[in-house]
Amino acid sequence: MAEEQSEQTVTPWEVFTKSETGIDYDKLIRDFGSTRIDEALINRIEKATEKPVHHHLRRGVFFSMRDLETILTLYEQKKPFFLYTGRGPSSEALHLGHLIPFIFTKWLQDTFDVPLVIQMTDDEKFLVKDNLPLEEANRLAHENAKDIIALGFDINKTFIFSDVEYISFSRDFYMNMCKIQKHVTFNQAKGIFGFGPSDNVGKICFPATQAAPSFSSSFPEIFHGNKDVPCLIPCAIDQDPYFRMARDVAPKLGYQKPALIHSTFIPGLRGMQSKMDASGDPNSVIFVTDSDEQISNKIKKYAYSGGGTTAEEHKKTGGDCGKDVSYQYLTFFMEDDSKLEQIKQNYTSGKLSTGDLKAELISVLQKLISGHRQKRERVTDLMVKKFMSPRKLNYPY
Amino acid sequence: MAEEQSEQTVTPWEVFTKSETGIDYDKLIRDFGSTRIDEALINRIEKATEKPVHHHLRRGVFFSMRDLETILTLYEQKKPFFLYTGRGPSSEALHLGHLIPFIFTKWLQDTFDVPLVIQMTDDEKFLVKDNLPLEEANRLAHENAKDIIALGFDINKTFIFSDVEYISFSRDFYMNMCKIQKHVTFNQAKGIFGFGPSDNVGKICFPATQAAPSFSSSFPEIFHGNKDVPCLIPCAIDQDPYFRMARDVAPKLGYQKPALIHSTFIPGLRGMQSKMDASGDPNSVIFVTDSDEQISNKIKKYAYSGGGTTAEEHKKTGGDCGKDVSYQYLTFFMEDDSKLEQIKQNYTSGKLSTGDLKAELISVLQKLISGHRQKRERVTDLMVKKFMSPRKLNYPY
Repeated sequence: MAEEQSEQTVTPWEVFTKSETGIDYDKLIRDFGSTRIDEALINRIEKATEKPVHHHLRRGVFFSMRDLETILTLYEQKKPFFLYTGRGPSSEALHLGHLIPFIFTKWLQDTFDVPLVIQMTDDEKFLVKDNLPLEEANRLAHENAKDIIALGFDINKTFIFSDVEYISFSRDFYMNMCKIQKHVTFNQAKGIFGFGPSDNVGKICFPATQAAPSFSSSFPEIFHGNKDVPCLIPCAIDQDPYFRMARDVAPKLGYQKPALIHSTFIPGLRGMQSKMDASGDPNSVIFVTDSDEQISNKIKKYAYSGGGTTAEEHKKTGGDCGKDVSYQYLTFFMEDDSKLEQIKQNYTSGKLSTGDLKAELISVLQKLISGHRQKRERVTDLMVKKFMSPRKLNYPY
Repeated sequence: MAEEQSEQTVTPWEVFTKSETGIDYDKLIRDFGSTRIDEALINRIEKATEKPVHHHLRRGVFFSMRDLETILTLYEQKKPFFLYTGRGPSSEALHLGHLIPFIFTKWLQDTFDVPLVIQMTDDEKFLVKDNLPLEEANRLAHENAKDIIALGFDINKTFIFSDVEYISFSRDFYMNMCKIQKHVTFNQAKGIFGFGPSDNVGKICFPATQAAPSFSSSFPEIFHGNKDVPCLIPCAIDQDPYFRMARDVAPKLGYQKPALIHSTFIPGLRGMQSKMDASGDPNSVIFVTDSDEQISNKIKKYAYSGGGTTAEEHKKTGGDCGKDVSYQYLTFFMEDDSKLEQIKQNYTSGKLSTGDLKAELISVLQKLISGHRQKRERVTDLMVKKFMSPRKLNYPY
């Protein structure tokens, strides 16, 4: 049992596995008590929205959920809900892993046409990091907001907020924080998050701040005092503990439990054992600010290969897509299903070399990231200010 | 040792002693590591302010301090400082015990002519009470503010704030909360406040909120961004743990340690063993809303007497002022020193009966409270709103 426990660790602060093929997501679903998204649910989404689902859903990047059917029923009944996701602003630039929930959330917003709130947890990053002043975390929140805005969110449907700024603006938000705090004991927070006696009290209390946006009453500007608008949270599955807690507390406050849709992690370049981590090894991370040359160099040099050790051996035995980081990245970023399938077959058989596979990925990422860079340059300070102003969105309530 | 520990308990949530003569304040000074206010310091205050000190200082109601000399030196050098005190709004009306720090703070403000901030901890009262909704705690903050304003604070020199309202207004205040939280571990909070694993995380985190007003940077409207204005906190000594913590954290944030001046507790009517407590036995409490008749009845019926058990015995052996609650109350509220001394002598000798002593107290309190009631009636909602608006006060910085 002890052995099994240390086989993989998934918390909001650490994601690691000993397995070369990466995190065991079936085990995670069992441990967390969430539900796998199956064919039937995907079919139901396509029927309700009258369009194909995003490739992140088709390919199991978003693979797990809580109460997603409830949200779908609301949509089918033309009843409102809203989206909530977030970002911890601990680095100047986002990396590929950070993009995943936002790319998918953009698809959700476009598809379901609902309001979206995005929390930038500058306060938490300050509380958990050793050398990050609060003022700097707040500045990073604004920098990161530019990357998020560059992904194309609708300014009339999206509210991005920094905790430091919105808590010191919204009485309703702060009151919800207090109400959540009251229903979580230290023991419960310890059980959910593994806090210890040497953790600072701010870190211990913070989960209430991340839970608060799950409730529409935290945003009176958007929902006009409507406290019953249900929430759907797209996020990487390491964030689930916050929302398990939010779901436990919700009925005690007379609020609706938020629904969830969980993604897998994008692995670091060096292998499937850990997620891409901005504060870890920089050579294991591709940032959205990397140049074409940096992208090419990093992938060529560091991307862990599931191919044979020599060209000859590779031709004979083929490559292992399950361990090959470049192939895995393509499942996140190559939209063309048939092309991806072709690559998989050719790589598995040994027909496609590791070098050629990497070249495919380099081309996809260079296009994605240079496009992103251009869009980011067009994001003005005024746009950031507007996105981050508490205001009415384009929805009547 | 175990026996000694249970002899008396003084925490922000409980004040109790087994001793009939009340709390052992010398022990408290030793335990807390504060300093007794001596004759020399009182003389220095009188010299600096060129007037007699308040009878609360002369009689040892305010008896203990930290760094009070530093504040006095500033005053002698005509350098600025500010006052900070507070109130936990858990009841509709204040009682006599609540008045003490405010009466003395008013004297400090009049004497030293400095800005004053008064924190109403509506969030904390919600977090620690079982049946107090947050909205109700906030309403009580406004009700209690009326009682505080009625004591005559200068509207141009005083800012009263509810936590719920000011935290959701002031980015600087919230940032200071976060900065303090980061420097206090659960273990430290446990050591200082006795928190346990079943306490809610909001309660565990709250001390940072009570510490934040110790720093002038929490009030940019008042101090115009001046982060170095030192603070003097008049409070009952059970609040000392919050400010010991603030003093520990201050240098880590580059802030000045707040200075303190501590009062004793006014005992409950039924005896010296506990402080007057609004949430305890209502017959042990005199509220500032009590009628003349209620005051008279409560004192006659419940005020613990240090006199003889029969009139005859009392005449022979006299009364014990140290145990007599009515006499103790007079030390707080009878301003005339020579009259008080006369009462003491006559009661101790047995010349003054318990009935007559109680009559003296009834007369003093009826006058005080009916006067207060009249002043409270003249406090308008508009005045409350003005006192509670973040704003520039009549001081240049």
